[in-house]
Amino acid sequence: MQAEIITIGDEILIGQIVDTNSAWMAQELNKAGIFVKQITSVSDDRTHILAALEEARNRADLILITGGLGPTRDDITKKTLCDYFGVKLIFNETVYAHVEQLFARFGKTVTPVNRLQAEIPENCIPLQNAKGTAPGMWFEQDKKIFISMPGVPFEMKSIMEHEVLPRLKTAFKLPHILHRTILTQGIGESALAGRISEWEDSLGPENIKLAYLPSPNMVKLRMTTSGPDLLDLENRVKEREEKLRLLISEYIFGSEDDNLEELIGNILRQRKEKLGLAESCTGGYISHLITRVPGCSDYYEGSVVTYSYAQKERLLGVKRETLENYGAVSREVVHEMVLGAIDRLQVHHAIAVSGIAGPSGGTPEKPVGTVWIAVASGGTVRCEKFLFGHTRENNIRVSADAALNMLRKMLINS
Amino acid sequence: MQAEIITIGDEILIGQIVDTNSAWMAQELNKAGIFVKQITSVSDDRTHILAALEEARNRADLILITGGLGPTRDDITKKTLCDYFGVKLIFNETVYAHVEQLFARFGKTVTPVNRLQAEIPENCIPLQNAKGTAPGMWFEQDKKIFISMPGVPFEMKSIMEHEVLPRLKTAFKLPHILHRTILTQGIGESALAGRISEWEDSLGPENIKLAYLPSPNMVKLRMTTSGPDLLDLENRVKEREEKLRLLISEYIFGSEDDNLEELIGNILRQRKEKLGLAESCTGGYISHLITRVPGCSDYYEGSVVTYSYAQKERLLGVKRETLENYGAVSREVVHEMVLGAIDRLQVHHAIAVSGIAGPSGGTPEKPVGTVWIAVASGGTVRCEKFLFGHTRENNIRVSADAALNMLRKMLINS
Repeated sequence: MQAEIITIGDEILIGQIVDTNSAWMAQELNKAGIFVKQITSVSDDRTHILAALEEARNRADLILITGGLGPTRDDITKKTLCDYFGVKLIFNETVYAHVEQLFARFGKTVTPVNRLQAEIPENCIPLQNAKGTAPGMWFEQDKKIFISMPGVPFEMKSIMEHEVLPRLKTAFKLPHILHRTILTQGIGESALAGRISEWEDSLGPENIKLAYLPSPNMVKLRMTTSGPDLLDLENRVKEREEKLRLLISEYIFGSEDDNLEELIGNILRQRKEKLGLAESCTGGYISHLITRVPGCSDYYEGSVVTYSYAQKERLLGVKRETLENYGAVSREVVHEMVLGAIDRLQVHHAIAVSGIAGPSGGTPEKPVGTVWIAVASGGTVRCEKFLFGHTRENNIRVSADAALNMLRKMLINS
Repeated sequence: MQAEIITIGDEILIGQIVDTNSAWMAQELNKAGIFVKQITSVSDDRTHILAALEEARNRADLILITGGLGPTRDDITKKTLCDYFGVKLIFNETVYAHVEQLFARFGKTVTPVNRLQAEIPENCIPLQNAKGTAPGMWFEQDKKIFISMPGVPFEMKSIMEHEVLPRLKTAFKLPHILHRTILTQGIGESALAGRISEWEDSLGPENIKLAYLPSPNMVKLRMTTSGPDLLDLENRVKEREEKLRLLISEYIFGSEDDNLEELIGNILRQRKEKLGLAESCTGGYISHLITRVPGCSDYYEGSVVTYSYAQKERLLGVKRETLENYGAVSREVVHEMVLGAIDRLQVHHAIAVSGIAGPSGGTPEKPVGTVWIAVASGGTVRCEKFLFGHTRENNIRVSADAALNMLRKMLINS
């Protein structure tokens, strides 16, 4: 079964917001065995929306539409869907009761503008929006299904989870789609391709499709296959994966949505050991990555973010003379920082990072992007210097990943 | 002038990556006076790419294509463009010299796979990719322009900035597009719409277009207009904005891409005062927001992220009995945390946050999403309790915004 996603809203076309909805929807549809053929973003314009609907129905059986369902005048999706199907808006009592109930919960009364939310195209089945006032809408015409949802992510997600996906699973016998992603680090895309060339040939593209997904810090390899028998798919992919692992074992650090902070967390939880941080240029970002993981309090104690000489002395016990002699971005300072973190936070493992994130602050000897990282683990301290040198945001992110990877390697080798 | 963006790659259609390139490109094109009519994401499939190119050329004069230019087999954009234009791939010496130079810089030699990067369709002008080996490509046919770029964001951005945008500006006399965005907080979309209804009528939709952009913590209002005379556009929009500000002044906190951390930073820099943080459930995220701003070391000292009772005692001086009597998520504890931050970091202003981010850890009295925030500023301490209650990630983000907004309000009222 093929689906298409149409997102409606000028805010996407002028770049004011990034369309994160489509990726989430595509993931959920894939899990349900539905391929997404195309994602199209169009403007809040009647003619354009009508054309996009017509083009999508010619390619796909299921068309999911988000956006343009708010109560304000620039939201024209509902009226345009009426035009598309040649129907009228009618007032729906059930939807209205839900709007009233939502307002009552927040102690507000329904305004005439909000009352309009209860008007829906007469040919649609309303889908309950537990998180907001604009209902989802389900249309069927000539064996094609059209589903319209609000663009607010948590409202759309709630309607997808509780209404759309269960209905699709009931209505259709769907094939299985299997994705398997292997994460590699420390090898470039081309070198990787050269190394696994024969293995890639053996996949047979009509059988298992391979994709390379490079990002600044890793290359992901994704195998995709589909069919009616999930066990068969799993076996075929597993067999290929085992062969792949033999070829590039030293570069593989995880699979699927694994990330360094979770891998580290799992090791620390098992060993009942604690982690602490001393951050300068990463400014709390490593701590944020670690604390995004639910349950991290099992192994994470905290971070001391020191953004000045004074705080490095005060909170981590870095010596003034070390700062003055070597500068904050130096082997000597991160070494004292990491020992300070071990001592002050009383943890088994610690990371310290100090660098020049930019855009200013660079010197000929220490240009923007220079980052010193120290990791203390099992009585050993390792210090390493990196030169990243892109934008401030990139430097922060890449430094965090490099630091976590240093810790991961020390953990698995100890 | 109308443009369209086509992104090529299965990874977008299965939701493995979010397409952030298109938003960035749309912003840059808008600044240059080019409207984006549609954004289309298609699969790594020859027929589908050819169809998307043909559809786009019927709607737009400029078609920007990203993705599918890597050295591996799933990258078929270059060959498909050859098919589309009915041309062959030819080896380009200039591109090859650049590939060699890039490899030499990293001390590597060019592999046969990399050599293929220098083969380009014979009818294109290569655009230098300073950040990678795959060149951008500029095609012209029947007054339509097609530009193909790699999907790696920093490579695409570099080609856009140094090659594409300068060439477009030279080649065309472009109109001006003016966007003006006003940021409001503390009022919902519907209530806002009711309040400014008459003002909205006065805009005249063919003259200035208004859009409401709601997100969990704010509603943005965006006016858009275009024309040949920039000064005229600016005057018209300015006049409307002044009237708008009179209507909803109490809700407006900024404009355009303003954010709370920058607004706070500007105030603190002017006053030569320092800020410090004591974070628990936000886990360093507030510190990350503040340190994303270049130059924040002018006013930011650091954060103490305490993820356990022990660290709250050790690093912030919170009393054990307070923790035991009231629990970590309580007015009493955030009050001691914020005073601890003032004292230990020796700053003028401090924020402390402690809450239950979830998904576990909630109790009937303190459900997931319960967050206590304390702000100390100018000798006053304010404590406030919030109940957010969505996902962990949302709770962290929304807590951070609420905390920064509390500080902002205390700063502007002191």
